[in-house]
Amino acid sequence: MDLILGSHNKGKLREYKALLADAPFTLRLLDEVGLAAFDVQETGETIEANALLKARAYANACHMPVLADDTGLEVDALDGGPGVYSARYGSSDRERCQRLLSELFNVPQEARSARFVCVIAVARPNNGQTITARGVVEGRIAFSMGQGSEGFGYDRIFIPDGYDVTWNAISLAEKNHISHRGRAARALLPLLSHF
Amino acid sequence: MDLILGSHNKGKLREYKALLADAPFTLRLLDEVGLAAFDVQETGETIEANALLKARAYANACHMPVLADDTGLEVDALDGGPGVYSARYGSSDRERCQRLLSELFNVPQEARSARFVCVIAVARPNNGQTITARGVVEGRIAFSMGQGSEGFGYDRIFIPDGYDVTWNAISLAEKNHISHRGRAARALLPLLSHF
Repeated sequence: MDLILGSHNKGKLREYKALLADAPFTLRLLDEVGLAAFDVQETGETIEANALLKARAYANACHMPVLADDTGLEVDALDGGPGVYSARYGSSDRERCQRLLSELFNVPQEARSARFVCVIAVARPNNGQTITARGVVEGRIAFSMGQGSEGFGYDRIFIPDGYDVTWNAISLAEKNHISHRGRAARALLPLLSHF
Repeated sequence: MDLILGSHNKGKLREYKALLADAPFTLRLLDEVGLAAFDVQETGETIEANALLKARAYANACHMPVLADDTGLEVDALDGGPGVYSARYGSSDRERCQRLLSELFNVPQEARSARFVCVIAVARPNNGQTITARGVVEGRIAFSMGQGSEGFGYDRIFIPDGYDVTWNAISLAEKNHISHRGRAARALLPLLSHF
């Protein structure tokens, strides 16, 4: 059966195809079902609400089941922020990282705990069933941007627990294995097989 | 395994025990897990959002998986209202029914279509997985309150498709069989068995 990925991003499609290889679905992009120009405003108050909102809206638009996700970085010293606003925290990855570093200026190591959270939601069309699953990676915010390849999003300032380098310095294979998205996908799989 | 019903209502507990008899869970009320005084504000913008919001809040409070539902009556001539506001549409069942009847004064039979919608949500604690399922009964709004027993909520003014009497005049056994809650529960069962 076809499952539509609520995204226009081919890299994300490849990643999810690998993560959900055991699920009885063929993943396809929105663009393959006539929704190349369709976007959903992420107006939810939580990461979970945004993932559900996207899956629901796309599923109702294309009349097929849709998988969508939302990701955020929760920093304890910022009361869980930027959280659901992570993507809107600045106009580029660099700007977002610099803003976070400056807001944590003076915050000591033991108070810099943070986590990456990913929620995956799947919705059937016509307001049908939904499922969600969450994956979390605990860690802390570094004091400066890490060395290594450019990385993505907040990777350059996030040090996962058990490591002493920022996430962009960790190999992609290793990162995929422990990632919040990978964990969410593994939590989703048993539900998805019976969706 | 225990599954907590996000409700203080023993009648609802009995109904769900019957509906979910095949699920591998023992249903218990909030009151049995120390949440007798706990209530959640239903601030969601949709029936689905409210069901999820309740299941999520209760599950995080009692650290066990919770099942919660929300129900609304969607009237096409009122653009889907009262919908998520069904319970707040008046201060008693009679007042709510009378308000709806007066708002549909002059609306002819063919434009009085409506549906009862029930969404059941189940959430694991600690922001874990969620599932939702929806059950719908299509029908229309009567021109006056139906005869028969007092009924419940909007039952006295709702005529399900295939009937020519209001819902409160239909036997409870028959009503349970076709009800929106029964349909939502049956849609939920395959997911719940693997939750």
